[in-house]
Amino acid sequence: MTEMLQSGATIGILGGGQLGRMLALAAHKLGLKVHIFCPDPNSPAFEVTPHKTVADYLDFAALEKFANNVDLVTYEFENVPAETAEAILKFNKPLAPGAKALATAQDRLVEKTFIQSAGVSVAPFANVESQTNLEQAIETIGLPAVLKTRRFGYDGKGQLFLRKPEDIPNAFKELGEQPCVLEGFVSFDREISVIIARSASGEVAAYDPAENVHQNAILHTSTVPANISDNVAQQAVAAAEKIAKALDYVGVMGVEFFVTDQSDHLVVNEIAPRVHNSGHWTEAACVISQFEQHIRAIANWPLGATDRHSDVVMTNLLGEDIERTVKSLPAHMMVHHYGKYEVRAGRKLGHINQISPKKS
Amino acid sequence: MTEMLQSGATIGILGGGQLGRMLALAAHKLGLKVHIFCPDPNSPAFEVTPHKTVADYLDFAALEKFANNVDLVTYEFENVPAETAEAILKFNKPLAPGAKALATAQDRLVEKTFIQSAGVSVAPFANVESQTNLEQAIETIGLPAVLKTRRFGYDGKGQLFLRKPEDIPNAFKELGEQPCVLEGFVSFDREISVIIARSASGEVAAYDPAENVHQNAILHTSTVPANISDNVAQQAVAAAEKIAKALDYVGVMGVEFFVTDQSDHLVVNEIAPRVHNSGHWTEAACVISQFEQHIRAIANWPLGATDRHSDVVMTNLLGEDIERTVKSLPAHMMVHHYGKYEVRAGRKLGHINQISPKKS
Repeated sequence: MTEMLQSGATIGILGGGQLGRMLALAAHKLGLKVHIFCPDPNSPAFEVTPHKTVADYLDFAALEKFANNVDLVTYEFENVPAETAEAILKFNKPLAPGAKALATAQDRLVEKTFIQSAGVSVAPFANVESQTNLEQAIETIGLPAVLKTRRFGYDGKGQLFLRKPEDIPNAFKELGEQPCVLEGFVSFDREISVIIARSASGEVAAYDPAENVHQNAILHTSTVPANISDNVAQQAVAAAEKIAKALDYVGVMGVEFFVTDQSDHLVVNEIAPRVHNSGHWTEAACVISQFEQHIRAIANWPLGATDRHSDVVMTNLLGEDIERTVKSLPAHMMVHHYGKYEVRAGRKLGHINQISPKKS
Repeated sequence: MTEMLQSGATIGILGGGQLGRMLALAAHKLGLKVHIFCPDPNSPAFEVTPHKTVADYLDFAALEKFANNVDLVTYEFENVPAETAEAILKFNKPLAPGAKALATAQDRLVEKTFIQSAGVSVAPFANVESQTNLEQAIETIGLPAVLKTRRFGYDGKGQLFLRKPEDIPNAFKELGEQPCVLEGFVSFDREISVIIARSASGEVAAYDPAENVHQNAILHTSTVPANISDNVAQQAVAAAEKIAKALDYVGVMGVEFFVTDQSDHLVVNEIAPRVHNSGHWTEAACVISQFEQHIRAIANWPLGATDRHSDVVMTNLLGEDIERTVKSLPAHMMVHHYGKYEVRAGRKLGHINQISPKKS
């Protein structure tokens, strides 16, 4: 799509979680309508629009009807089945980000191979389809290393940390004998991420890198500015830009990096072809949030300014935290509650953004 | 209501225009559900929630069903019929702001009398229920003066400017022989407004005064900071606070002032018992917008910080302006499109907020 989406058009969103919900709110701010497609009848995004489809992602009759009711389709998660993406295109609706981004981000082997081919560093890696493969890979890559399933991993799930030789014999079995990649362990100082947008007409805009801290393999805080040199920040943005261009990407993408101990060297950890948890800070510290930026990018409208008016710390709210936090509000704190009413320990239910005047 | 509204509760909103829509988006950010009640089936607020009632404000069966589906009722416009407000209370649902605020703001005579009794200055005024009343009032108040219908005026409608004796004989007839007030003309330097919030438990928070410029009697821009002294700013906030307290007000209220030529004297022009067009700038320049603040106030949650991180100019988008603006985005400009698809000259269809670093 190279034309601009018309005002009053309807954005179709595959996925009804908090990211879909926040995308829908941003689309509404731009006067657009939203149709949410999600198999879970309790999806929080269903509460913010009158247009919804509750159906499986492989229900092609439902997908056809959905496609006929929208002008453009996007998604909130990278595990949209390839068949679903194909169906949307078959029903003549644009899909953004495109099928290439989806296929690349769904498989860690494809992803790492692609990033490397785009001229951006990743940790040493090897394909592992058997225990024998794993043992061979360890010979090249060494220990410690991380074995990860190629597909469907998130928040630390589908990963095994291999520290010593005794960890090796059962590893492939433990991950269910699924296709995996072995990644060399990167000794890093910090984790950062870049939220970058690229529009259908090729305009690119990146937000400042955020510094991310995880707890129990779940993102805990994102802090901006990150404690990195200008040089590293520029490198990170340039790498994200390379990847976005090489993917012919349309929309907002999150790129996670390790900043290694060795003289500020950067290594890409993974990419997410969607708005990203580590970009939630943009909602409070920028005029245009990552959610609105995504809608602008896929609608092929001019991108918004990405610079910050404030410094900011974003903190995820998990499980029980949410109730206490929403109802107490220290100064300069913005709370976003995702409208998930089933509270479970460790479930992402909201986030807070605390801003402060820019120091630099 | 002095308890805090529970998460997951439903806010009922009377009125489905842009203010109702923006209130709904803010409620969603706080994880609350929203039910919109509006007689116009094309209301823009219907696009941002699955819960709606299309019915007349005096359809008591519909009101009862609505009241039973929500936890708390608020409104986006001050002309909610008194019978509607009574019905909500009869059906045992809290109404915020309360019936007193509504009754006061609906009638210019009651409003001015009330403001004066709260110890805040208004222009000289007199009740006018006949041409004879008008002529008597002119003797006291003099010319120039403004004759305004007591009820249902907005954006300059229902007003006549009386400049010279020849304007007097037909004036009462021209306004339809409705009950009116005559107001002495205030020679003013500038118009400002204060957006103030008061929660059910009595917490009060005001945003910085905005300086408002009208074109054809419709708000054109609101600029913050206003070009006024600190003393005037403090006077304005103190006056708004007096009015809010005297009304036992719950929610966000807009108070418009004239700053007169005479040594920074302030006179209240009118109050609006709702979020206000001259507070749309808060969406871009504060962490908590007036819309979220209203929801917090009526939910009896702690109010958010009201200070600005940026200077800001809000400009209304009328009629045809909207399309061009949404699709071009100079740096640091935030566009809000109200999702009204019928474009008419002079109709408020959106606004833009342009921020810049704070000068002070």
